[in-house]
Amino acid sequence: MHVRMEKDSLGMKKVPEEAYYGVQTVRALENFPITEIPVHKELILALAEVKKAAAIANMHTGMLSETIGSAIVKAAEEVIEGKFLDQFVVDSIQGGAGTSINMNMNEVLANRVLEMLGRKKGDYDICSPNTHVNMSQSTNDTIPTALKIAAFRMAEELITIMNSLKMELMHKENEFQDILKMGRTHLQDAVPIRLGQEFGAYSEVVGRDIRRITEAAKEMLTVNMGATAVGTGLNAKPEYIEKVAAQLSAQVGVQLHLAKNLVDGTQNTDGYTTLSSALKVSAINMSKICNDIRLMASGPRTGFQEINLPAKQPGSSIMPGKVNPVMIEVVNQVAFQVAGNDQSVCMASEAGQFELNVMGPVIIFNLLQSLKIMKNGLDVFTRYAVSGMEANVQRCREYVEESYGIITALNPHLGYETAAKVVKQARETGLTIKEICKAHQLLSEKELEIILDPREMTTPGIAGNQFLVTT
Amino acid sequence: MHVRMEKDSLGMKKVPEEAYYGVQTVRALENFPITEIPVHKELILALAEVKKAAAIANMHTGMLSETIGSAIVKAAEEVIEGKFLDQFVVDSIQGGAGTSINMNMNEVLANRVLEMLGRKKGDYDICSPNTHVNMSQSTNDTIPTALKIAAFRMAEELITIMNSLKMELMHKENEFQDILKMGRTHLQDAVPIRLGQEFGAYSEVVGRDIRRITEAAKEMLTVNMGATAVGTGLNAKPEYIEKVAAQLSAQVGVQLHLAKNLVDGTQNTDGYTTLSSALKVSAINMSKICNDIRLMASGPRTGFQEINLPAKQPGSSIMPGKVNPVMIEVVNQVAFQVAGNDQSVCMASEAGQFELNVMGPVIIFNLLQSLKIMKNGLDVFTRYAVSGMEANVQRCREYVEESYGIITALNPHLGYETAAKVVKQARETGLTIKEICKAHQLLSEKELEIILDPREMTTPGIAGNQFLVTT
Amino acid sequence: MHVRMEKDSLGMKKVPEEAYYGVQTVRALENFPITEIPVHKELILALAEVKKAAAIANMHTGMLSETIGSAIVKAAEEVIEGKFLDQFVVDSIQGGAGTSINMNMNEVLANRVLEMLGRKKGDYDICSPNTHVNMSQSTNDTIPTALKIAAFRMAEELITIMNSLKMELMHKENEFQDILKMGRTHLQDAVPIRLGQEFGAYSEVVGRDIRRITEAAKEMLTVNMGATAVGTGLNAKPEYIEKVAAQLSAQVGVQLHLAKNLVDGTQNTDGYTTLSSALKVSAINMSKICNDIRLMASGPRTGFQEINLPAKQPGSSIMPGKVNPVMIEVVNQVAFQVAGNDQSVCMASEAGQFELNVMGPVIIFNLLQSLKIMKNGLDVFTRYAVSGMEANVQRCREYVEESYGIITALNPHLGYETAAKVVKQARETGLTIKEICKAHQLLSEKELEIILDPREMTTPGIAGNQFLVTT
Amino acid sequence: MHVRMEKDSLGMKKVPEEAYYGVQTVRALENFPITEIPVHKELILALAEVKKAAAIANMHTGMLSETIGSAIVKAAEEVIEGKFLDQFVVDSIQGGAGTSINMNMNEVLANRVLEMLGRKKGDYDICSPNTHVNMSQSTNDTIPTALKIAAFRMAEELITIMNSLKMELMHKENEFQDILKMGRTHLQDAVPIRLGQEFGAYSEVVGRDIRRITEAAKEMLTVNMGATAVGTGLNAKPEYIEKVAAQLSAQVGVQLHLAKNLVDGTQNTDGYTTLSSALKVSAINMSKICNDIRLMASGPRTGFQEINLPAKQPGSSIMPGKVNPVMIEVVNQVAFQVAGNDQSVCMASEAGQFELNVMGPVIIFNLLQSLKIMKNGLDVFTRYAVSGMEANVQRCREYVEESYGIITALNPHLGYETAAKVVKQARETGLTIKEICKAHQLLSEKELEIILDPREMTTPGIAGNQFLVTT
Repeated sequence: MHVRMEKDSLGMKKVPEEAYYGVQTVRALENFPITEIPVHKELILALAEVKKAAAIANMHTGMLSETIGSAIVKAAEEVIEGKFLDQFVVDSIQGGAGTSINMNMNEVLANRVLEMLGRKKGDYDICSPNTHVNMSQSTNDTIPTALKIAAFRMAEELITIMNSLKMELMHKENEFQDILKMGRTHLQDAVPIRLGQEFGAYSEVVGRDIRRITEAAKEMLTVNMGATAVGTGLNAKPEYIEKVAAQLSAQVGVQLHLAKNLVDGTQNTDGYTTLSSALKVSAINMSKICNDIRLMASGPRTGFQEINLPAKQPGSSIMPGKVNPVMIEVVNQVAFQVAGNDQSVCMASEAGQFELNVMGPVIIFNLLQSLKIMKNGLDVFTRYAVSGMEANVQRCREYVEESYGIITALNPHLGYETAAKVVKQARETGLTIKEICKAHQLLSEKELEIILDPREMTTPGIAGNQFLVTT
Repeated sequence: MHVRMEKDSLGMKKVPEEAYYGVQTVRALENFPITEIPVHKELILALAEVKKAAAIANMHTGMLSETIGSAIVKAAEEVIEGKFLDQFVVDSIQGGAGTSINMNMNEVLANRVLEMLGRKKGDYDICSPNTHVNMSQSTNDTIPTALKIAAFRMAEELITIMNSLKMELMHKENEFQDILKMGRTHLQDAVPIRLGQEFGAYSEVVGRDIRRITEAAKEMLTVNMGATAVGTGLNAKPEYIEKVAAQLSAQVGVQLHLAKNLVDGTQNTDGYTTLSSALKVSAINMSKICNDIRLMASGPRTGFQEINLPAKQPGSSIMPGKVNPVMIEVVNQVAFQVAGNDQSVCMASEAGQFELNVMGPVIIFNLLQSLKIMKNGLDVFTRYAVSGMEANVQRCREYVEESYGIITALNPHLGYETAAKVVKQARETGLTIKEICKAHQLLSEKELEIILDPREMTTPGIAGNQFLVTT
Repeated sequence: MHVRMEKDSLGMKKVPEEAYYGVQTVRALENFPITEIPVHKELILALAEVKKAAAIANMHTGMLSETIGSAIVKAAEEVIEGKFLDQFVVDSIQGGAGTSINMNMNEVLANRVLEMLGRKKGDYDICSPNTHVNMSQSTNDTIPTALKIAAFRMAEELITIMNSLKMELMHKENEFQDILKMGRTHLQDAVPIRLGQEFGAYSEVVGRDIRRITEAAKEMLTVNMGATAVGTGLNAKPEYIEKVAAQLSAQVGVQLHLAKNLVDGTQNTDGYTTLSSALKVSAINMSKICNDIRLMASGPRTGFQEINLPAKQPGSSIMPGKVNPVMIEVVNQVAFQVAGNDQSVCMASEAGQFELNVMGPVIIFNLLQSLKIMKNGLDVFTRYAVSGMEANVQRCREYVEESYGIITALNPHLGYETAAKVVKQARETGLTIKEICKAHQLLSEKELEIILDPREMTTPGIAGNQFLVTT
Repeated sequence: MHVRMEKDSLGMKKVPEEAYYGVQTVRALENFPITEIPVHKELILALAEVKKAAAIANMHTGMLSETIGSAIVKAAEEVIEGKFLDQFVVDSIQGGAGTSINMNMNEVLANRVLEMLGRKKGDYDICSPNTHVNMSQSTNDTIPTALKIAAFRMAEELITIMNSLKMELMHKENEFQDILKMGRTHLQDAVPIRLGQEFGAYSEVVGRDIRRITEAAKEMLTVNMGATAVGTGLNAKPEYIEKVAAQLSAQVGVQLHLAKNLVDGTQNTDGYTTLSSALKVSAINMSKICNDIRLMASGPRTGFQEINLPAKQPGSSIMPGKVNPVMIEVVNQVAFQVAGNDQSVCMASEAGQFELNVMGPVIIFNLLQSLKIMKNGLDVFTRYAVSGMEANVQRCREYVEESYGIITALNPHLGYETAAKVVKQARETGLTIKEICKAHQLLSEKELEIILDPREMTTPGIAGNQFLVTT
């Protein structure tokens, strides 16, 4: 490997000759070979936006020359377009509150600027990672700001997917609106319900999750650019601070707000725990829904078999034709991962001390992963599982008729005592409640039809109220 | 023990003669001797409100006679006033989605009604726990509704306490506004900050927590009365449903909403996880603040010693005069408890199946405990720790002067090279940055005073900007 | 309320005249009104043992007079016998590493000694809570030691219960040994299995949990008596240290070991996290088993209905005869509680600093609660759910015959192609695999009987191997 | 992209022409674009070992021809040597219990065999992924077995690193053996301790963690090869089962045991939660140690400054010379990640149902990640932080002398009353305890030297016992 030598305050280091990153990135590679997973691409892109905005703001205050400033802007735009992504090599988990991520970016941009200006990489006199690219900035404001932009964007994507999911669930709610099935509590037969009502309930909870995540994501819009080291803004000009926030908003197309209290904005990480919690709450809801769906799809012969899922891949090499609910299982797993990630985010958040939370990297790793896997998981869930799901109408209906739960609707018509006898006889004979009622002419065919009408039995009030003789 | 015999669908059981509870409570005592901690009093009171409202609504629809209905109302009001609380004996953790809590209440009210009407306890003909007290209700709507009322009330109390805490923190923010101290990142000397700024940041984060908990608590206002077993409202008259919600709102003094979708309102527990998560997020923030305070109060001789805490109890039997930050430590522990409780609530929420989450009791136990201990913990924290806290102004100031971090403010005036030499000399001689600057006449006494003015150094921009000669 | 005045280093306080506790307990009551749940009784009893042993060791070294020493021993024995338990009033969550628990005990014993010696409560000259009762001790060694003794004892009780559970599961393993049922993976029909095999697997995992908890509980046997404040044993005589450990071992009837490194023994809490983790691992296993059982018992008409659970309480006021699996659900909830408690214990453990973990109280609260509720929960689970469980042999058998999964066993006899056709026909006609084989005379009645013999199909190898014609 | 067409039971799919993987992998890529992180390399290598062993066992029983069998063995060995790793492309989180990982391997090996035999990829007649490579196997035995082998190997590597860490801590224990410093409890000055004692305590807890992880890792040695689908071993010959386990043991060089109860071995995941918990317990211990170290290294001027850490990278672009404890912070973050991972593993474990836990992939992802990042994190921590750590002897000593805590050692010599006066005077004058004792000739220089000797003051007993006049 051809190398160049670079120097920082701790001394000289070899850097691969072709690398756009520099000595501090090399130190980070040496210091932090932890997860072997690089930082989320989404963070890198957002950080490049931050660098571009900072350069523009620094030109605005006259701190940075047009020549260097414009070149930094150009280099940042290249990264934003997806170039040089292989140069962002530092590990997802690292000490130093994200300093190594920030320096990796500063070095890549500085060397790209040098290259554009016909200089050699590593000759940082006219454009240094610290002095020029990082001008008026600190890891402590750039990294949180980049995280917030990345998280907000990913949350928006997630919400788009969740809206599709909600639409699809509402579609199923309508499609299954008249399919009567047995409601279950404690996994025991309860009273009838319509399959559409169940999917309506799923749709409602997804709707609330969308609202909560949307709300939590708004916390990402308050950034601390200009805070510098501890939030006091020492050595950052007020004009710079004002400009950088406006510029960044314009770039990313959302209205970012400067924290009113930059000290608060720098030390506190409650925005992340809030968003992470909202994701966890939603993940738990999704896991519950998935558990229901897997139960409803259980079978084909020894399970509930109320619905059929689209076959997405062969399920077994031993049993021909076995198809497993893999698109549901994957969402359960996403949920467990999101719950675990929230735990990591919370412990990291609790570990903040004084003016800074230095555990930023592990927060970034987990928060953005949660956003990503929920988006990806719910996307395939919607398209490959929910949309093609079909109901076994006959099976659902049989369950209602075979079950004793139907008696609850007949109670007001038969009286408790007779009803109890009907159930007893059903148990002894294996006949259905309906069959016994008919056999004993307790209710007419027509009465039974109306009382046991899906909508009658599954909406508030007494089914077949019109047949009741007032006493 | 004198006993009476009572019977339910599973057979006869002995009940203590004096007990207001009945056979089903006795079964619950036998089945669930788990935590040995009874259900939260707050839940019992809220459930009594539910029973009162249901009785009134049932009289309204004519289902319940005035005689029995009014007696149930009267009995429920006695419980609400705090009577018979020793009769609510079932364990906090129990199977059955809260059936035993519901039946414990139904039995106590029924027997109290019987007593009021001159009947013997256990003679349920004219007033039965199931038929009369539980009329038009199910465990599956009364218990969630009671939980929501209890949680909302406790959240309101918590928010009152948190507002006091925020006020007290803002008071400290003002009091400490001009106390310069050294800011720390990575627990390493960074740049100066004012103690008031730190308390301002604490106050801000508590303010956000108040807003989040307030928002989350609103989810408690949507109840599912009238849902009966699975949310379809089978056998609950529409007029009853309408009445019971309005009546309950009037009683508890807040506007409760009926869930638009009662199936959703019965099966989903996302409101609880949302409130629990908001509490956890706040608990984590409080733990971070407490960690800071304990560090600032560390010492007296071998710690930071930036603040003094009021002495609340002798700290050690071995070392005379040792006073420990016990009122802070207790909040850390509350935070850990709340985080653990959230874990239990989340796992329980994930375990819901189909039309009902049967893990209600463990959710009640943890959610209400979190609300209670946060309220209690933050109350004593505010009154016994924050309000009497004092700053060691001198110590804080010395830190700034002894630290090299001050050099960052002098950088623009001295130039990086000279500044570096000053730091080097400070290290070698043990003198302060200020002393060296004076000794070498690098800056005048007046210049130093202005540049190192607390507000100058701790607000955005370049401290002593006016002395800079434009080049 | 009649009061007496007591004084400590912070000043005078009123104490209820009748109270055995004193001024420092009163301060604790004022400072820590947090959970409103007193400290676990088991800890109080263990702490009394510690006090007794310390008094004996202090008499042994001559530090404590026989008069006072013997009286302390006597008073401690009274507490051990269950007296004065209402005097231990401090809250489960409290600041100060357990100082308030320790002082509550010291004060109760001192006042009881004074009473025995004919003195007035509060006149601590001849027997003071600190000087005499707490002699050679510190909160930092007595509280951890008491916790360890309590935890070890409770773990032993838990293990006894778990052994009963294992026995009962093995009993079911035998009882259900020949009941063929359909195995399920992904909740989809897989291949046959015997119900006994499933209970055998449950029994095995419970066995491993017993082993793990037993192993983890051994960590409780290493105590740090004599460590005093920070583990250096300052002011504790070596003869005292030796004596107190031996004495305590003799008293509690298990061999306690002094930590070789008392500094380690005082600052580290890994023993608690280890035990808590073992409980959590077991709780998760139990929750999985309970989920299975609830599924197997689901029905009666719309579920799996493979087993019947003993009815323990009426399940519903609306549906006559509904019986819910409440004794199983309660164990799920215990599991969630234990998992949450572990979270609290872990966060508290991580918060230790330097020579001491001051978060002891919240560790005690959660660790002992986990031990208690697992013991109580598994006890009723064993007696009320497992022992009376019955199999629906017919239903289980029907599932096997109705399912296509049986084809896997017939595969080697029919060839893959024919087997596939049989499955296809079964799907189309609704007939069973067996019926089709008979109808087409693919296999004789006898061959089918042997191949589909429960043991043949559910043990390694090819079922009906003897009928295979070698090609 | 050139493609070939492949078919499975769900139909035809395009596969990249050059790919060694096949149609089922393509389906998995389509179905599970979740984390964008491929399965851990360590699992792939272990799975290749499993495939090799199975092929050998299948040849042994005569089920597999020598030609095909040997080619499979050869292909598996190539993977084991690190070839074709880019062909293992399925996502870390996926539905289907690892079927896609298993099939990815089966397809790669089958196609490599075809290539070796001069056939075209995808022509599976003579060597099919299912029939030949997966012969006698199921996802449900191969994937758990591969996970266990991978986890055991990684645990061994972790333990090697932890042993180095323990050695380094013991080295520091010795190096710092005579450095007296102030012990702290509640972050408040307590009594003296030696820095070496603290590192001794760290070393002890790491030692216990090594023991616990070693013990937990042993659970990985019990595998379920031969279980096939549900643990009954249906269609797996007993000779195969025996052979495959022995062969696999020989290959990986550790004695693997077949689960006595293969049903148990297939459905239960308690081995993983046990290992994950052991890692979490250790992570928590490490986090506590790291918190201590960061506190001890805090400063340089406004912190404790008791130790200096090696500088590993520049800490700040604003403050020249700022060096942050990045090698410590990274271990805190590793700890938070491991704790979160354990949460995911536990929730996944709880979600097992009946004969299989289908959440295997998320368990693999987290368990192996925890093993990897602990190994990597502790390695750099040991080499870059612990080994170069230095004590500030002078600072430590000053703390002891400046602190009042020293009075505890002098107590027996001065009497409590005089001692209290000395402390009072120290507070008022700012003089040290020692200076006051000398000034008032309370103790001679020699007495003070001996009493305040580091070892005297920091070992059990009364420091300077020889000077005590017996009364």
